[in-house]
Amino acid sequence: MKPVVVLVPQPQPVERIFRPETLARLRERFTVVEPEAGDAAALDAALPDAWAVVGQPDLPTERLDRAPGLRAVINVEGNFYPNVDYPTAFTRSIRVLGCGPAYAQAVAEHALGLALDLARGISREDRAFREGRERYLGEGNADAVLLRHADVGLVGYGNLGRALRPLLAPFAPTLRVYDPWLPDAVLREADATPAGLDEVLSRSRFVFVLATVTGDSEHLLGARELDLLPEGARLVLVSRAAVTDYDALAERLAAGRFLAASDVWPTEPMAADSPFRSLEGVVLSAHRAGGIPAAFLEIGDMVVDDLELMAGGLAPVRLQQAAPELVARYRNRPAG
Amino acid sequence: MKPVVVLVPQPQPVERIFRPETLARLRERFTVVEPEAGDAAALDAALPDAWAVVGQPDLPTERLDRAPGLRAVINVEGNFYPNVDYPTAFTRSIRVLGCGPAYAQAVAEHALGLALDLARGISREDRAFREGRERYLGEGNADAVLLRHADVGLVGYGNLGRALRPLLAPFAPTLRVYDPWLPDAVLREADATPAGLDEVLSRSRFVFVLATVTGDSEHLLGARELDLLPEGARLVLVSRAAVTDYDALAERLAAGRFLAASDVWPTEPMAADSPFRSLEGVVLSAHRAGGIPAAFLEIGDMVVDDLELMAGGLAPVRLQQAAPELVARYRNRPAG
Amino acid sequence: MKPVVVLVPQPQPVERIFRPETLARLRERFTVVEPEAGDAAALDAALPDAWAVVGQPDLPTERLDRAPGLRAVINVEGNFYPNVDYPTAFTRSIRVLGCGPAYAQAVAEHALGLALDLARGISREDRAFREGRERYLGEGNADAVLLRHADVGLVGYGNLGRALRPLLAPFAPTLRVYDPWLPDAVLREADATPAGLDEVLSRSRFVFVLATVTGDSEHLLGARELDLLPEGARLVLVSRAAVTDYDALAERLAAGRFLAASDVWPTEPMAADSPFRSLEGVVLSAHRAGGIPAAFLEIGDMVVDDLELMAGGLAPVRLQQAAPELVARYRNRPAG
Amino acid sequence: MKPVVVLVPQPQPVERIFRPETLARLRERFTVVEPEAGDAAALDAALPDAWAVVGQPDLPTERLDRAPGLRAVINVEGNFYPNVDYPTAFTRSIRVLGCGPAYAQAVAEHALGLALDLARGISREDRAFREGRERYLGEGNADAVLLRHADVGLVGYGNLGRALRPLLAPFAPTLRVYDPWLPDAVLREADATPAGLDEVLSRSRFVFVLATVTGDSEHLLGARELDLLPEGARLVLVSRAAVTDYDALAERLAAGRFLAASDVWPTEPMAADSPFRSLEGVVLSAHRAGGIPAAFLEIGDMVVDDLELMAGGLAPVRLQQAAPELVARYRNRPAG
Repeated sequence: MKPVVVLVPQPQPVERIFRPETLARLRERFTVVEPEAGDAAALDAALPDAWAVVGQPDLPTERLDRAPGLRAVINVEGNFYPNVDYPTAFTRSIRVLGCGPAYAQAVAEHALGLALDLARGISREDRAFREGRERYLGEGNADAVLLRHADVGLVGYGNLGRALRPLLAPFAPTLRVYDPWLPDAVLREADATPAGLDEVLSRSRFVFVLATVTGDSEHLLGARELDLLPEGARLVLVSRAAVTDYDALAERLAAGRFLAASDVWPTEPMAADSPFRSLEGVVLSAHRAGGIPAAFLEIGDMVVDDLELMAGGLAPVRLQQAAPELVARYRNRPAG
Repeated sequence: MKPVVVLVPQPQPVERIFRPETLARLRERFTVVEPEAGDAAALDAALPDAWAVVGQPDLPTERLDRAPGLRAVINVEGNFYPNVDYPTAFTRSIRVLGCGPAYAQAVAEHALGLALDLARGISREDRAFREGRERYLGEGNADAVLLRHADVGLVGYGNLGRALRPLLAPFAPTLRVYDPWLPDAVLREADATPAGLDEVLSRSRFVFVLATVTGDSEHLLGARELDLLPEGARLVLVSRAAVTDYDALAERLAAGRFLAASDVWPTEPMAADSPFRSLEGVVLSAHRAGGIPAAFLEIGDMVVDDLELMAGGLAPVRLQQAAPELVARYRNRPAG
Repeated sequence: MKPVVVLVPQPQPVERIFRPETLARLRERFTVVEPEAGDAAALDAALPDAWAVVGQPDLPTERLDRAPGLRAVINVEGNFYPNVDYPTAFTRSIRVLGCGPAYAQAVAEHALGLALDLARGISREDRAFREGRERYLGEGNADAVLLRHADVGLVGYGNLGRALRPLLAPFAPTLRVYDPWLPDAVLREADATPAGLDEVLSRSRFVFVLATVTGDSEHLLGARELDLLPEGARLVLVSRAAVTDYDALAERLAAGRFLAASDVWPTEPMAADSPFRSLEGVVLSAHRAGGIPAAFLEIGDMVVDDLELMAGGLAPVRLQQAAPELVARYRNRPAG
Repeated sequence: MKPVVVLVPQPQPVERIFRPETLARLRERFTVVEPEAGDAAALDAALPDAWAVVGQPDLPTERLDRAPGLRAVINVEGNFYPNVDYPTAFTRSIRVLGCGPAYAQAVAEHALGLALDLARGISREDRAFREGRERYLGEGNADAVLLRHADVGLVGYGNLGRALRPLLAPFAPTLRVYDPWLPDAVLREADATPAGLDEVLSRSRFVFVLATVTGDSEHLLGARELDLLPEGARLVLVSRAAVTDYDALAERLAAGRFLAASDVWPTEPMAADSPFRSLEGVVLSAHRAGGIPAAFLEIGDMVVDDLELMAGGLAPVRLQQAAPELVARYRNRPAG
């Protein structure tokens, strides 16, 4: 008898995260049960036979108790939420897995694209061109800089940093990384120099903010920290808006202290009258770094690859495991 | 007695291409004579003692004859022009050197920035944001693609291709290169697949046009060739406008057949009413890829490094040598 | 109060795996209890207060029950053994960690060294030299080959394969990998081609055997498989001897069918009269690939780094976690 | 009419440097004239029609005068010799080309193999094994070290250094390079640190000697310099024996001061009673680093590729050009 996989990926539509052939692989190897989104009764009815749940439904103690054969719960959104009774899951050796790594390559490529845009004024000069005020040759290049051999700083070295690291390698930067959650040896192994936040900010021409927010990292980059950036620095923000004080950021961009690109914003959608919409020294991106078709489809591949491994008595290798030490830090998903 | 270097770099201002310390090195090691720009008599007066000429003055037979001790002529603009009596120079073993490689890293970084912009719609979505019509998360990403593991084509593999190659390495592309001037072995040595132009165009999601124009390469990319590009391809033009038929290009961009970014234009400045200024599917760049401060200053460093080597009885290693086989192909510089 | 770490690393001597400064860090942050090796009573006495056990003592259910505050058991030898009641440990969310990755870089460098030795006959010609029968220039090079652009196969892609992969990158091999425990996507992400064992063996000039032995992989390379290797192939064996049929191997080496280097042997020490000792076409290595001083000291660093993270409420990042799905496959350590 | 190529590659046999298909390409595109080796009259007879000479015959002024259509002289041995009247060749814009780069990859791979052998005692322990005195596991590893993150020094950064550089990249060394013939910028561009010879020697655990001998570099590494090496350093000699004082080297190896591998020797063949033959701390290689079949065949490919380019009016790109500034330094080939 095939193991039963309960598929409730919402808000992810099934077809966004599964290629047809991936879905076919899933159905071939497993009995797939698909309760309607939000149909709690149908979900409850499916649990007694469930071997895996793919999605982010609420799974409190009672529901886990209804699923004695459950071996895996797979989040297909990207961040872990407090929707699962993690301690019970761990006690029962139920794998709680997440798809965070699926987005990392997309975010890393976007982040590099933003950095090169800031280095060379690509979007700014494209706008100028459209308004008939383009400047040819060296004239528009007064503030253009190379990434090659530059001082580069990373704030945070998780999935995103690991995906960005190889893209930076051919630029041979002097690379400083701040990540208080990691031993220095991990950063040295990545051929980077571990450094404090102040050092990273004050000595880097390019700074990539890749940290996920926790209690500790909220407004990690406040006014004081932003003032550490060298004149003319390029700041790329692609992880969580809460890490940065955007009011302080807007002030400094308006004053021309440095340049920035941001993919995340304290309020999304951004207020129509936000000053960011008219600042010259910024590249605006609407939370688009990770959610591209190739990344979504990677999620489905990862899910089926790991379910197949587990069904064959092997450990999952593609999805990320929820860490018992960290589950208390997981936050509710933003409304909407 | 120090060798005499005649410095006539115009239109390059001296301070644009020489850092103060580089100029100091030059003056320390050589006697530097600086005729006024355009002062032919002063130049003629300097030639009898000249050991090297740095700049692009006309050096016909008569002038070379006036300079019996001349060992080097160094072009500091970027392309060789027919300003020198090359056969005489070669017969006399006068090194004719150019600074083309100085711009290669800057162009390569700009080209990668343009490609990532096209991959992800960075400047297009920045514009949308400023007009209050930004689309969040997956909504604006329908046509977003990864560079990682993509099919990538290069048209031309000279200085620019060589500088771009390592930047592409971490994306592990399937890389096809068309360069009819190079043996296949050179491309294989670069871990690329030699291919015909049609194959490069028809099988690549990303195409970088890096060829310099010659009689053969004028409109290398005409309507027929552009039609070979796959639907939704990303075309990056950073070498010479004459390589591409821009009218055919504009039509296809207007029709949404593919996306393009261009740093070069058939007429610069571009006409105010050019259709390119309002096309959505293009990134506009005003011949800014190479001429950035760091590239200009590299020229001076290369000049002084190589003059020092030659003065010490060694061969130059940083500048590029004019090839006897190619000088007949050098073209006049564009007016202005 | 500091958490209590019970340190029983034997057979690893403490000073082999801990640098003085690492040991100082351990003592600074933790209360370290060190029962004598083999003193079961002292170990039992330490367990009630234990927060972590560093070493490979027997930890059956009863002992785990005596240690209610236990959070981590850290194996410092390299392979997991069936010394722990894993199910109980998992149920109690006790981290069971291993130091396998500490050896990977050392093994990878040794494996590359062996491959280059086989490519060029380094040790063979050194021996010839010492016996006065060296051959100069091309004469000794009839069978010398390049690693650059060669067909290379890996059998197994765990810690060792991952460490070897980047060392092979500059040789730009055509890389085929056989690992039935991994989804193809993992291998493609490593820019390798997933392939069956027969294809890997029959199409590779260089084959690295990096698989750890399990029921399935015993004599994975038998006579039939060895016969698939191309004439003149180079075979590097650095993981577990049980993977390969050494009798079949010796026959083929004696016949000059291909060349091999081996760091592991079915019986260690090898019998004095083993035919391997006098075969020309082999490089003999006495299980020396991983156990070098730098690797041993890395273990201590990993242990203390991860203990510090866990004591700070974070997940370990340097050591490897025992996988619930795999513990049934762990084998007893070899005698002696 | 096809251009005439005079083929006198001796002492290289034609079939060593030309694959059959390469020779076919040569004959297809050119009229190939092959005077017997040493038949001066036949060579003289061929010169009046010659467009290119492939080989190292004596080409003094008189012979060049007999060859008015000569465009290229291609050395297929590896080093330029004073066999050509270079000034006349340069005055007539005859390309004088050499195949030195053909050997670089082979030498680089051999050099890395020797370094890894020294790092891990591969050939030493293979010898021990054959004599029944092998040491298992950590016992034979007391002096084993990693290349990863090591201090590495290069003496000389020509063809060999450039080929070795990428092979070292994944080891992420701290790389210092001494090359007095190169501007610092060339070394920085290779992501290396320019340094003086004493600094390279005294701070590197691994030293690769890649310098070609000139008047200046004879005994560049004398007793004083060898004494700068750190205790236990690993020295790899693969360029020219004259660079190093081998008597001083033997003394230090006998004393166990450091370890070395050498592919070149002051006298080849080495004297039967040379102390090197019995030293433990050395790896002996009989001038085998470059001359492997793949390198020889690369020569033919390079020759035909470049002849085809030149015949098509293009500059050669694969062979190396003799530099007017350096020809006075070319030395006679060693006897035999």
